[in-house]
Amino acid sequence: MAGPTFDLDLASVFLGPKAENADIFERLLLEAFRDHVFWRRNFHPEDGFSISEIDRRREPYQESLSRLSQELLGLLGELKGGVPFFSPRHIGHMSSDSTMAAMVGYFATMLYNPNNVSAEASPVTTRLELEVGAELARMLGYPEGRDWSHLTSGGTVANFEALWVARNVKYLPVSVRWAAEELGCELPIARAGGERDDVRGLDLWALLNVGPREALDAAERLRGAMGQGPSHDALSRWSLASLGAQEFERKLKADFGDPLPPGVVLVPSTAHYSWEKICRALGIGAAQVRRIPVDRRFRMDVDALGSALCELGSRRQPVIACVSAIGTTEESAVDRLDLVAELRERAASESGLSFYLHADAAWGGYAATITRGRDGQRRTLEAARADYAPEDWPSPEVFAALCALGRTDSATVDPHKLGFAPYPAGAICFRDRRVRDLVAVEAPYAFASEGERTDLGRFIFEGSKPGAAAAGVWLSHRVLPLHAGGYGRLIGETARGARRLHRALAEAAWAPFRCVLLPETDLNIVCFAFAHPKLGTLEENNAFIQRVHAAMSPVPSRPARHLDYFVSKTLLRADEYGEAGEQVALQLGYTAGDYRRAGGIAVLRSAVMNPEVAAPRGRVDFLAGFVRQVAEVLEQQLFAPDAARHDR
Amino acid sequence: MAGPTFDLDLASVFLGPKAENADIFERLLLEAFRDHVFWRRNFHPEDGFSISEIDRRREPYQESLSRLSQELLGLLGELKGGVPFFSPRHIGHMSSDSTMAAMVGYFATMLYNPNNVSAEASPVTTRLELEVGAELARMLGYPEGRDWSHLTSGGTVANFEALWVARNVKYLPVSVRWAAEELGCELPIARAGGERDDVRGLDLWALLNVGPREALDAAERLRGAMGQGPSHDALSRWSLASLGAQEFERKLKADFGDPLPPGVVLVPSTAHYSWEKICRALGIGAAQVRRIPVDRRFRMDVDALGSALCELGSRRQPVIACVSAIGTTEESAVDRLDLVAELRERAASESGLSFYLHADAAWGGYAATITRGRDGQRRTLEAARADYAPEDWPSPEVFAALCALGRTDSATVDPHKLGFAPYPAGAICFRDRRVRDLVAVEAPYAFASEGERTDLGRFIFEGSKPGAAAAGVWLSHRVLPLHAGGYGRLIGETARGARRLHRALAEAAWAPFRCVLLPETDLNIVCFAFAHPKLGTLEENNAFIQRVHAAMSPVPSRPARHLDYFVSKTLLRADEYGEAGEQVALQLGYTAGDYRRAGGIAVLRSAVMNPEVAAPRGRVDFLAGFVRQVAEVLEQQLFAPDAARHDR
Repeated sequence: MAGPTFDLDLASVFLGPKAENADIFERLLLEAFRDHVFWRRNFHPEDGFSISEIDRRREPYQESLSRLSQELLGLLGELKGGVPFFSPRHIGHMSSDSTMAAMVGYFATMLYNPNNVSAEASPVTTRLELEVGAELARMLGYPEGRDWSHLTSGGTVANFEALWVARNVKYLPVSVRWAAEELGCELPIARAGGERDDVRGLDLWALLNVGPREALDAAERLRGAMGQGPSHDALSRWSLASLGAQEFERKLKADFGDPLPPGVVLVPSTAHYSWEKICRALGIGAAQVRRIPVDRRFRMDVDALGSALCELGSRRQPVIACVSAIGTTEESAVDRLDLVAELRERAASESGLSFYLHADAAWGGYAATITRGRDGQRRTLEAARADYAPEDWPSPEVFAALCALGRTDSATVDPHKLGFAPYPAGAICFRDRRVRDLVAVEAPYAFASEGERTDLGRFIFEGSKPGAAAAGVWLSHRVLPLHAGGYGRLIGETARGARRLHRALAEAAWAPFRCVLLPETDLNIVCFAFAHPKLGTLEENNAFIQRVHAAMSPVPSRPARHLDYFVSKTLLRADEYGEAGEQVALQLGYTAGDYRRAGGIAVLRSAVMNPEVAAPRGRVDFLAGFVRQVAEVLEQQLFAPDAARHDR
Repeated sequence: MAGPTFDLDLASVFLGPKAENADIFERLLLEAFRDHVFWRRNFHPEDGFSISEIDRRREPYQESLSRLSQELLGLLGELKGGVPFFSPRHIGHMSSDSTMAAMVGYFATMLYNPNNVSAEASPVTTRLELEVGAELARMLGYPEGRDWSHLTSGGTVANFEALWVARNVKYLPVSVRWAAEELGCELPIARAGGERDDVRGLDLWALLNVGPREALDAAERLRGAMGQGPSHDALSRWSLASLGAQEFERKLKADFGDPLPPGVVLVPSTAHYSWEKICRALGIGAAQVRRIPVDRRFRMDVDALGSALCELGSRRQPVIACVSAIGTTEESAVDRLDLVAELRERAASESGLSFYLHADAAWGGYAATITRGRDGQRRTLEAARADYAPEDWPSPEVFAALCALGRTDSATVDPHKLGFAPYPAGAICFRDRRVRDLVAVEAPYAFASEGERTDLGRFIFEGSKPGAAAAGVWLSHRVLPLHAGGYGRLIGETARGARRLHRALAEAAWAPFRCVLLPETDLNIVCFAFAHPKLGTLEENNAFIQRVHAAMSPVPSRPARHLDYFVSKTLLRADEYGEAGEQVALQLGYTAGDYRRAGGIAVLRSAVMNPEVAAPRGRVDFLAGFVRQVAEVLEQQLFAPDAARHDR
């Protein structure tokens, strides 16, 4: 965790807006490439060459390579039609340049083509993947050496794996009871409130409210009492994963009478659409996603969460999991995870209601580095705030939430977001590595003699996976360690840039327009809208914002090279944003009724990822230029015809 | 589809075992890199440089870059501890070198970092992804312009998405009925046998046996009759995806009385372990995976499949899907998909039993290129066989199975397997693009005015996804088109190499050992075992094979550079392989009882991917060397102590 002792210069991290570091990048790229070339050449050099120089002069060989060159040139031209994420003129999408380390590490490893599905074919990169996972788990605050953390293709798969595990953990005590009954084994288990009883005597509601850790402990005790083989077989046979939802449900009904209403998943009302997708795919059902309103800072309302828990408890509806967002994709809002974790403890001890807690920190996870000193230890809020002064950041609430990540059962943290690594690099960290047994496709006891197994494909959702992604993230972590002196510096700059942008938008002279800003962001995404006396309806206003966005986005007829600045947009849908969106509507001069009728509010959105937004290094203040450009486009687009809509 | 007119020289496709093409690769790499560098530099050149030469001389900047260089050198050293997939001395794992086109295309695009989650931020690479998908769909034989095909992180996610869709299609007629009842709408629907009745009059068994296409047609007719809004809302509200398995089941029971036994998924008994994982995750349940025995060629036994269908039909157990393997991961066995497709038609017309048909062609999908002439049209078996003469390949059975891919509802085809593209590049192709509506997280009608939407994240399982992967595959398809003159050449060489290896193993003098070969492979994976009089038990024999494998695999104490040849291994588990494995046990001189007791047979396994195995280009015949090396290792390892086991 130690990392560099020097004060990091962020200019050394990226290729640079004008590829200022091209010489270094090229040197490292060639180093990696040639090192690989001569590894091939020196691997059994006695074999000689397979392809001779004479072969290479023949017509078919030359034609094939000409074709490759030609098509590559075509591709290179096409690629320039995309959004220039590398430029500080892009303050829009949640995409940016990757670190040189991550890109060079990725490329160097791609030449070897390792597949992390199984360590047998990727001994090196599987190790790097598990190292990276362990680093992220330490950053979150999970007890060292007991976590289970690995990379995924992205946040959706990471969140999917977490909820898959959560469901298995939720129903595990039922399987433990059925297994104990089959084996004729007495097994004490602690209820949510703490009292211990024989598992065979618990009713369904009590079983579905055994805490996640106690459920795993109980399964382990069963194995301890009965031996791995028979207890594992029975546990596995009676698991939801094995029986499937339909048979499991039938057996519940047969054994317990009415099997209670279906288990729900609690998410903030503004949660990413992938949560609905995940619940559909798992068979939990979109209707079982319970959306908790957000407050005016777009954070899950903890009081509303408490009320929902009470209501669910009173009608005995099990809660599979609660998902808390650490950095929403639209506003980078950070839920009060500390309060959610406390509420969870209270719900267990006072109401006998227990659930799995997952942090969707796909966007904000790396921000936890600001809570860690160079020694990897937690530092104080004051120390953190001193680093980012004079900005008023991090707020005590955000800092407390980041420190509470260690109190969750699992967290998604995507290196390809604020880890600035190339796609695909998501990650899922589980606090308790025993959850692996609940998803492993092969009985782990069969391999007990082989020590720690690293055939990832058998313990995680995905199979084949690029070892190159692991190496890229690993190398980036070497240069930017997971503490305030490494990634913390970079994340801090993005937060400073967002504050600077917020201020600039608030202070600019927009008349006759009026700029309506969402409340100051918890991390680094700024959302803003505009009102104008001529925009009579919210529908007209929304169409206007769409036009402004379109004018600052590349399209085939007006490619990136013709544009000066780039922004993104989003829609605050009334059914997701509720009162949090209503306040924006009111500030824009519309009514709550307008807001409901229009279905939501279109806003412009700037995810600040480029460090130059906070601190211009060259002669251009890109932030000031961005604001000027927005003002110009507002004028141009006020009465322009509607552009074709292209929602996010 | 046209592609090059010249006769492809495969030596031009890869970097080469001794990096013979290093000069060209380096030129293209630098071309891509510098083209990107100067794109950055020429993007608003008036901005000037952000990072000055003086900045770059400062200590923190220099230290950070020194650290990057140092750590990169460390990584480069570590990477050499892996398996040298690029070398023809590796005839083992299903991993190989990637094409230069795919690697350069990947790298060139990584510099731009596009994310294919949404076309707004990746207009170019999303288009390339959909182009690649359409090319694969055409190769499979799906009707042009009506498919829905895209890339995934790999085969597991592709197969998962297929089964997710299959389940939604299976239960769609039930939702159609419920929606028709709610809307008070008469809707004729065709039963499996063809007779049309009002959907509201069908019993559950009939509903669950409406064919996949008719189910989609009925949903479309409902929308046509009632308008998109209300019918879509009702259909969506009554869907399994929305209600979740538990509520759906309750409603089935309430409406139809006993809701029938749980739906099963039929797979060949040797199917990849990910199928069990997928059924666990979807909530279908591992117990609902019905394994159909394989014949002596390791192909799903179509008669056994027929019997299973009869049995399931007689007890009215619905079949969600049948999965057929086109190239198993262990033997590259190709199921008789043509016969399976015929059986499906017969089951519908004669027994009123309908199901979704998916081809897991993750490994073998690209082999369908051998059935296509340069014009993209299907060619004859004779024309294909003439290309690969004097080898007796493809067999009429394999050719017929590959031609039947177009008769499935979906197929997984992984470019990162026999497409020789870097990870991550799986692909899923659906025959009927209307299936998208069953998994989309947002009501498609809400966007009907916007024409074709390309926010992939809303229509597929995954979210963020590297645009670079799409560009890599796209560029590789330009150089190696999807017909007999492109990929067909390469796949053909791997099949020829496998046949040459099979013959060499059969003909070598092994005494006092005896080589037992699995039947000749359908594609390009050769499995083989050895018997010796001193190996009294099958357990001893299995341990011996493990030692032989370990001696031909890198470990930290004996890294790749100390090894001459590389092989992989697998275990023919008795519970999966049944009689197909028993024949191998008998040939080795053991009894059926020995086979059951040992739990299976360890065999060595060579996935032939390097074209040089078929046709040595240089002075070394790697195949002959491989066989000699195996013979030496057999002698060495006969009485060696057991190495630590490291299963696949």
